[in-house]
Amino acid sequence: MSSSFGKLFVVTTWGESHGPAVGVVVDGMPPGLPFDAALLQRDLDRRRPGQSAITTQRSEADQAEVLSGVFDGQTTGTPICVLVRNQDAKSKDYDALKEVFRPGHADFTYAAKYGVRDHRGSGRASGRETLGRVAAGAIAKMLLGRHGVTIFAGTVAVADVVAERRDWDVAETNPVRCPDAAAAARMIEVIEAARADKDSVGGVVEVVARGCPPGWGDPTMEKLDGEIARALMSIPALKGIEIGTGFAATRLHGSQSNDSMGPDGFRTNHAGGILGGISTGQDVVARVAVKPASSIGKAQETVNAQGEAVTIAVEGRHDPCICPRVVPVAEAMLAIALANACLRQQALAGH
Amino acid sequence: MSSSFGKLFVVTTWGESHGPAVGVVVDGMPPGLPFDAALLQRDLDRRRPGQSAITTQRSEADQAEVLSGVFDGQTTGTPICVLVRNQDAKSKDYDALKEVFRPGHADFTYAAKYGVRDHRGSGRASGRETLGRVAAGAIAKMLLGRHGVTIFAGTVAVADVVAERRDWDVAETNPVRCPDAAAAARMIEVIEAARADKDSVGGVVEVVARGCPPGWGDPTMEKLDGEIARALMSIPALKGIEIGTGFAATRLHGSQSNDSMGPDGFRTNHAGGILGGISTGQDVVARVAVKPASSIGKAQETVNAQGEAVTIAVEGRHDPCICPRVVPVAEAMLAIALANACLRQQALAGH
Amino acid sequence: MSSSFGKLFVVTTWGESHGPAVGVVVDGMPPGLPFDAALLQRDLDRRRPGQSAITTQRSEADQAEVLSGVFDGQTTGTPICVLVRNQDAKSKDYDALKEVFRPGHADFTYAAKYGVRDHRGSGRASGRETLGRVAAGAIAKMLLGRHGVTIFAGTVAVADVVAERRDWDVAETNPVRCPDAAAAARMIEVIEAARADKDSVGGVVEVVARGCPPGWGDPTMEKLDGEIARALMSIPALKGIEIGTGFAATRLHGSQSNDSMGPDGFRTNHAGGILGGISTGQDVVARVAVKPASSIGKAQETVNAQGEAVTIAVEGRHDPCICPRVVPVAEAMLAIALANACLRQQALAGH
Amino acid sequence: MSSSFGKLFVVTTWGESHGPAVGVVVDGMPPGLPFDAALLQRDLDRRRPGQSAITTQRSEADQAEVLSGVFDGQTTGTPICVLVRNQDAKSKDYDALKEVFRPGHADFTYAAKYGVRDHRGSGRASGRETLGRVAAGAIAKMLLGRHGVTIFAGTVAVADVVAERRDWDVAETNPVRCPDAAAAARMIEVIEAARADKDSVGGVVEVVARGCPPGWGDPTMEKLDGEIARALMSIPALKGIEIGTGFAATRLHGSQSNDSMGPDGFRTNHAGGILGGISTGQDVVARVAVKPASSIGKAQETVNAQGEAVTIAVEGRHDPCICPRVVPVAEAMLAIALANACLRQQALAGH
Repeated sequence: MSSSFGKLFVVTTWGESHGPAVGVVVDGMPPGLPFDAALLQRDLDRRRPGQSAITTQRSEADQAEVLSGVFDGQTTGTPICVLVRNQDAKSKDYDALKEVFRPGHADFTYAAKYGVRDHRGSGRASGRETLGRVAAGAIAKMLLGRHGVTIFAGTVAVADVVAERRDWDVAETNPVRCPDAAAAARMIEVIEAARADKDSVGGVVEVVARGCPPGWGDPTMEKLDGEIARALMSIPALKGIEIGTGFAATRLHGSQSNDSMGPDGFRTNHAGGILGGISTGQDVVARVAVKPASSIGKAQETVNAQGEAVTIAVEGRHDPCICPRVVPVAEAMLAIALANACLRQQALAGH
Repeated sequence: MSSSFGKLFVVTTWGESHGPAVGVVVDGMPPGLPFDAALLQRDLDRRRPGQSAITTQRSEADQAEVLSGVFDGQTTGTPICVLVRNQDAKSKDYDALKEVFRPGHADFTYAAKYGVRDHRGSGRASGRETLGRVAAGAIAKMLLGRHGVTIFAGTVAVADVVAERRDWDVAETNPVRCPDAAAAARMIEVIEAARADKDSVGGVVEVVARGCPPGWGDPTMEKLDGEIARALMSIPALKGIEIGTGFAATRLHGSQSNDSMGPDGFRTNHAGGILGGISTGQDVVARVAVKPASSIGKAQETVNAQGEAVTIAVEGRHDPCICPRVVPVAEAMLAIALANACLRQQALAGH
Repeated sequence: MSSSFGKLFVVTTWGESHGPAVGVVVDGMPPGLPFDAALLQRDLDRRRPGQSAITTQRSEADQAEVLSGVFDGQTTGTPICVLVRNQDAKSKDYDALKEVFRPGHADFTYAAKYGVRDHRGSGRASGRETLGRVAAGAIAKMLLGRHGVTIFAGTVAVADVVAERRDWDVAETNPVRCPDAAAAARMIEVIEAARADKDSVGGVVEVVARGCPPGWGDPTMEKLDGEIARALMSIPALKGIEIGTGFAATRLHGSQSNDSMGPDGFRTNHAGGILGGISTGQDVVARVAVKPASSIGKAQETVNAQGEAVTIAVEGRHDPCICPRVVPVAEAMLAIALANACLRQQALAGH
Repeated sequence: MSSSFGKLFVVTTWGESHGPAVGVVVDGMPPGLPFDAALLQRDLDRRRPGQSAITTQRSEADQAEVLSGVFDGQTTGTPICVLVRNQDAKSKDYDALKEVFRPGHADFTYAAKYGVRDHRGSGRASGRETLGRVAAGAIAKMLLGRHGVTIFAGTVAVADVVAERRDWDVAETNPVRCPDAAAAARMIEVIEAARADKDSVGGVVEVVARGCPPGWGDPTMEKLDGEIARALMSIPALKGIEIGTGFAATRLHGSQSNDSMGPDGFRTNHAGGILGGISTGQDVVARVAVKPASSIGKAQETVNAQGEAVTIAVEGRHDPCICPRVVPVAEAMLAIALANACLRQQALAGH
């Protein structure tokens, strides 16, 4: 129940950080579409640890194996299972943490919920679970591409450093994946400073879908913004999401925030491409709040499973800022939410 | 498909603003619980139009009729249908708008999606649809009350006026439903000024669940925060949601935003009561961004269904700020999301 | 959870036999289709009690009120709520049965499951719940009609009397709804004899969908036959279902039961219009086993809620054979299952 | 969408007959249960090809690899992925059939639905897909075992040979898995005769769950019998299902088919352990109609993808009667349906 997203394009991830493998099953991909294996691997590489100096140095090739649902280079309409073996799991590093609840992590809540847990490398709560999401997102992009939809994403804030520009072609040219080259340089400084201090920083990731036709999304309980919110908020470490002008819209007047229309269409996009839960045809724009990474080398006070006070420093190979690695995951989850809305609208049309 | 929320506590609303009636079916309420009809009616009254000088003057008694699922004052475990007849629908007011896409409304997107639409009073996209949500939320509160969970909500910002206090018992004593009496007075001034200017203002609503045990919520794809985000973002006019410290957490260091623990439990609650998608036992805290009401008397430029430029002023009985009426709806949607998490956790436990 | 059927054409019934009303919400009906209110009422009339001498004499007008989802005679794509008030409920008749578990009824199991139950007129377990199904089925037929699909059904066996013919236009001309006029006369004799003996008889109902294009139905876990089986087996009093040649196929050889093909298509239809869970384009044919009605005037041994032995005779207004009233319900459930398959296939096509 | 079964114990199979692997993801298994890997392998071995002289001679070790969801020999509550590599796929055997629609197979309907298909070894429509079901069923049995539920199954008819006895401990001692040793010998003769004639035969499989407490199953739309019907009818080659006395009950009177009760409980079990869609506490009994295997060596008339008449003989390694291999699959699907009902009832109880 907990591991699936979507009704028509159903994504089910499975796997633990230090188990034999992680992966995903995508059920509902339409048949007869070219399967772009290179896109799949490229997105996995963008999520992969060890890509740059500012990410974790865990070394995983993350080579995807497609086990089903593709034949002669085409999708067949049957479920697509993608598997990646775990290779560089250093479970020994976690022995000391077996009985300790790391602050900011899901250790305490998993113990409370399940009683038993695979503590190695955060088990199921590891960011490694997002690998399956990224694979599924790449498949969703193959579907969306057929409908003319393109997805962009990047880090638009790190701590107090805010990007002013949205040069999406710049985003992939710097390690922080910021669409503003000048801001990127300052963001990296902030991240390096946090790491030097055995600490971490947060930020904001923006994700945009361009080319969605008007009419996607179901009103009331399955609004497009609601589904996107759910999709993005299911990514680890996110504490907020906004659409279009978002929280800043609460400080405008209606005469400002209403997007007026002319014969050429909408004149502004405060709505972020969604009205009444349905796409308007403009860019769908979402931003998510990424909390500072929970794993830090600084000493922290916490308790162990027996409720006794302990002090820990989470050593190991961690990300001082996970924004650059959230970028491909946010793209994936937006693509998955839109793929569902796309199929849903197909079901309604043409009667 | 679009009108249901939840898997185990399934809420399905139906009805249009100017149709014969609006209502809801709640399927999955456990049997044998006392049915608190007074709570149901009280929550409907809190959502009702015409409660105060700062809300719309449409006059609806909104008397609930419970048609099924309750016998001898107890729930029976069968679906509960609640119906409210529409009474003061003035459809004539909308004749002039039949062919015009009001800015900020879902007129354009409904037309794009469905081809046909009931334009009277916004039809299905009307805030009146939330009546069914509030009825269902009251039923969810009956279940949650059995588990010791209480829900509070209030308006914590209107335009630039921000509440400093969270005196929840104060919230229901002022028309803006603000838990800070001093801020409430200033909020009302801002709302009155907007109305005098034929304009509208937005704000922020906070909703809190106290008493959730640790362990509710499913990790990965059905995280408690993801489900809450989806539930709240399905409310009309919302443009953002944050949990706990939310977007402000992006400007902290990990050593600050990680909630440290001691033998007495968590020492702070930046996480907003959720870690790894699972409740921690602390207050679950969410805030939503409410955009300025779309219906304003000011002249606005838009187009009609033929794509021709027109200027409109949306006359009628509107809310200059919908925050006070969002409050009971936000409570309801949080309650519904938590009722699902509660039942889901029951299913897992005890084997 | 228990009261909904379908993912894309979602049917949710609600209501108890002696509560204020029964009804249904249909969510997912595409927009822009003419709403055939006469068809809806005609199907309700076919299910209505008191239609003929061989059915129960409870008197219900069963006039449908459509509360939402229809505007200017067209569907709008929003949920359609249909309500029927209960009128001739004689709850006093059931006072004596409050504490007794009637054999063949769900009294014992409801008590075991829920602890509390509305015992009046079987409450939720009453055949009256099927009214909502029939209303939803009529709406499904409006959708299917657009796709060229027509549905036929009739009683093809009562006790040992088996219909030899399938003259579907004859079925509605006799009270047992048998498509074989000669058999119908004998069936009525058998039913009258059972009633005279304060007993009841069972039978077999066949339901056929003509005009389904090839390609409907999802293989593996949502096979068209699986969905039809689930839809039909959710009708009260059914104990079996078969597709095409069904159980008789177990006594054939493969060389007989395989439907050979020629350039003009399939030459036989042992498969009942479904191969691998997907429609073949031939008639979809299903038959269901209807057990003898549980309510009989004959003395029966049972126990009360305290586990004490009691003897009861279920007096009142009962059907000695429910086959004729199962006919419209079976049509409805087949139509609902097919409407889902139709929308599902729309979602897949056209990429 | 098509490849998942269940809401709380969600089983998703994936894989094609001649692809790299087949497998399953089981999501919703409660945590803290001992994982019985031997039971899993034993059930896979019972489904495996080449077990006896009367089954296909394809040689597959079918060694299961558990990739997630189990830690230190216990379930963790996270999704369990089970993978089996395909080894003895002889795709060349199918080259001649690439463009031909084999009678009784899903070739035509897959082509009609998807346009493209993996024709090798029937692709996704192969009986090999059921491997994932059996793995999931073994996991469901681990859950049911905790609740005291045991499952039995066997072949109770082959063509005209009908088993009179239900000696469940005998079923696994003969290759046809018949719980009546004398009947088994005759069944084998019938099967061998069909094979010698390059033909195939069908039969009936019975599956029983003993120990279900009263109260499992949701009435109306998710009746236990409806869910079981859907679960079993999703198995390839099934054309019918009946519960308890089933179709034979249509020839009884109500005074016979109603199961009377005494202080010691029910006196008969015509109902097959289910009343009103809810378990009674008696044995849950279902029987399914298995059609003769579609692959036969006899010449058959059909068409190719161009619609031209062709004659084919399906050579290769086929089962002349698939009943013995349906047995473990039917057990699995019943177990999966019951696991869902079990978890669902847990969710309702205890408020």
